[in-house]
Order: sequence, then structure tokens, then C-alpha cells
Amino acid sequence: MTASCDDAAMDDDQAVTSGPWTRRRRRIGYQNAWLTVWHDEVTRPDGAPGIYGVVHFANLAAGVLVLDGEDRVLLVGQHRYALDAYSWEIPEGGVPAGETALEGARRELREETGVEAALWQELARVHLSNSVTDELAVLFLATGLTHGAATPDGTEDLEIRWLPFEDVLGMTLDGSISDAMTVLAVERYALRRATSALDQ
Amino acid sequence: MTASCDDAAMDDDQAVTSGPWTRRRRRIGYQNAWLTVWHDEVTRPDGAPGIYGVVHFANLAAGVLVLDGEDRVLLVGQHRYALDAYSWEIPEGGVPAGETALEGARRELREETGVEAALWQELARVHLSNSVTDELAVLFLATGLTHGAATPDGTEDLEIRWLPFEDVLGMTLDGSISDAMTVLAVERYALRRATSALDQ
Repeated sequence: MTASCDDAAMDDDQAVTSGPWTRRRRRIGYQNAWLTVWHDEVTRPDGAPGIYGVVHFANLAAGVLVLDGEDRVLLVGQHRYALDAYSWEIPEGGVPAGETALEGARRELREETGVEAALWQELARVHLSNSVTDELAVLFLATGLTHGAATPDGTEDLEIRWLPFEDVLGMTLDGSISDAMTVLAVERYALRRATSALDQ
Repeated sequence: MTASCDDAAMDDDQAVTSGPWTRRRRRIGYQNAWLTVWHDEVTRPDGAPGIYGVVHFANLAAGVLVLDGEDRVLLVGQHRYALDAYSWEIPEGGVPAGETALEGARRELREETGVEAALWQELARVHLSNSVTDELAVLFLATGLTHGAATPDGTEDLEIRWLPFEDVLGMTLDGSISDAMTVLAVERYALRRATSALDQ
């Protein structure tokens, strides 16, 4: 799929209210299989005219904190093209509209790592960058593991590591893990553990 | 500023390596004052041709967890246009290249809320959505407060609330706060408190 600058077919001139904003006109500024940028002509909260570029994600983002029986976390390492940097993260992937977040998370985990999990629990549901995107991330805790063969797709060149939970928490806290979904999942789970230790 | 579909002037046909990816050609698919979408023709890690749409942010995102002497947190409420939803968040804003994250955070806090803080501490530095964006968020803890008059800009229609830290933590944990930067800042700080309580 190539980017679209063929605006005429995409125009939407119907005024739409969004809280204190009014959208006067929407056209597609860019589109590929993963994202669409809507270029909106708006009236701002103060009544002045303006524009808003909204990055709409085709998929939701699922991430899985995978814990084995020895309290080790499954990390996936890959070069992130958008950052031109190597990144260690929990297994993550895009979930299209026809799939639930849980189904997508199971599938991504199986494809990327070959791991299947019997027990799934939703950890968090957040909007990653709400100033200009509508991207929703759903994070899971997965335990009760069985191990099979990975089948990564052609865009994925992945390394796998199992590291003690405390080490992974250290990596999020010291910044050596910088992926927001990973930091969120690891620290929410760490907080749950610390809170339950305090309650005892 | 309007979106650009004037690709010819923007073409970059120099092959560039990004880990196991090779970028063959880059053009600007969309651009406004806040973001640029690069439409890249690439060779994927498996050697197949593909495309990558990279959302480049002009600004970094700063967020401030503001705590007063009564352990209350400053929250800002606003309608988020990209989500068409109301959202309670820590004060956040974009920091352009000429400003440090700390300078930008101070400025945004003062503009949005009129609050100034004597003590600043960096809490976290994360990439919010690294599959297709390069957006960096820097989160601070700010204490030692003085209060002045807010001067929000014309795109901002804000409410201000001071809520007990434990209530705000409850809102991140139960999903009534869904903004990732807010969840990250609040839960990292809560984890620090819980850990230090456990150490005593």
C-alpha cells in the first residue's frame, strides 16, 4: 500500500463537534496499512480557526508480561526502526479490529516466541499518546506457560531472553528499558507485589 | 500550516541502514507544525521490500507530577480531540528543540496552571509508541510549590483539580485515568513509596 494524497475522494465536509472543538472538514493526509493521518480543519476552543492532525491507528497495541514459574520475565529484543535503536521489551503486537485484545495478545506471543499461557489477566488499558493519536494499548499478565516454536513474520528479527523479574524492574527504573508499554506493565505489576507485601 | 503533498522537494534517495532494515527512499507523506510522517521504502529484515510510515514528533512530551504539602496531586482535565473523550491528566505539554525537557515542563506547568515549583526531579524517560513513532516523554516530580495565575493558550480549555495522591493512584489503577504519561508518573512514584516503606 502506498501513501495517499488523493484527497478529493476522502473529503468529509460535515461539521462535527468534539467537546469544545468543532471539526469543519476532514481529509486523509496520509495512509498506510497501519495508520491514517486525518488532517482536520477545526474551530478551536477559543473560537479561532486551526488545524489538527490526528494519527489514527488501525490496530490496538497488545503487550504481555510473561512470567514463568521461576519468576522470570520473557523479553524480546529488536531493532526499532522508528527510533533507529535496539530495544528490549515485553512481547507486543498489533491487534486488528476482528480480534479481541486477548486473542491478539495470545497470537502475538505464540508467533514471536512460541510460548503459550494458560492464565491471562488484564493488567492495564491506556492511551499511549493522546495529544495527537488514538492508540490504545492493552497489557496482560500471562502465566502457566508451555513452550513451542516461534514463527515470526518477515518484519521481525527477534532475540528472546528470560530475566529475573527484579532485574527487568531494575531495567525499567534505570532507563535501559524505555518502551512505555513495557515500563507500564512491569511497574504496575511491581506495585501490586509491593502493595500486597505491605498489606501482610 | 497545511499538510504537504509536495514530495519532490523532500525526496531522499540515499540508502540508509537502520539495524537489520535498509531505508531505500524517504519522502514526506504528511507534515504539520507538530508532526511529520515519513513514508519510507525499505528492505525488511528478511530481505523483502516493504514500506514504513514513521511518525516523527517535532516536540518531546513533558509531564509533571505536582505534589503539594498535603500530598495532593494537581490534575488537569480537558477534552482530548484525538480521542473525542474527556481526560484527567498530570500537566503535560510539548517541548521544542530549543528548550530542555525541564525548561519546557516548568513553562507548561506555569502556563496551564499558574503553579511554580522549587524542587524538580526527573522521574522517567520513555518512548511512548515505538512501533511507528519516535515520541519521547520525560516525566518529572515537582514539589515546593507557589501559586500564580494560569495563561493557557487558545487550544486549551482546562479544568484544574487537586486530589489526594492515593485517590489519583486509584484512578490510574481502575482505568478512570488512561493517559499513559500520567499512569507512568503516578505508578512509578507509588512504587518508589511502597518500596521505601518496605525497606523500613
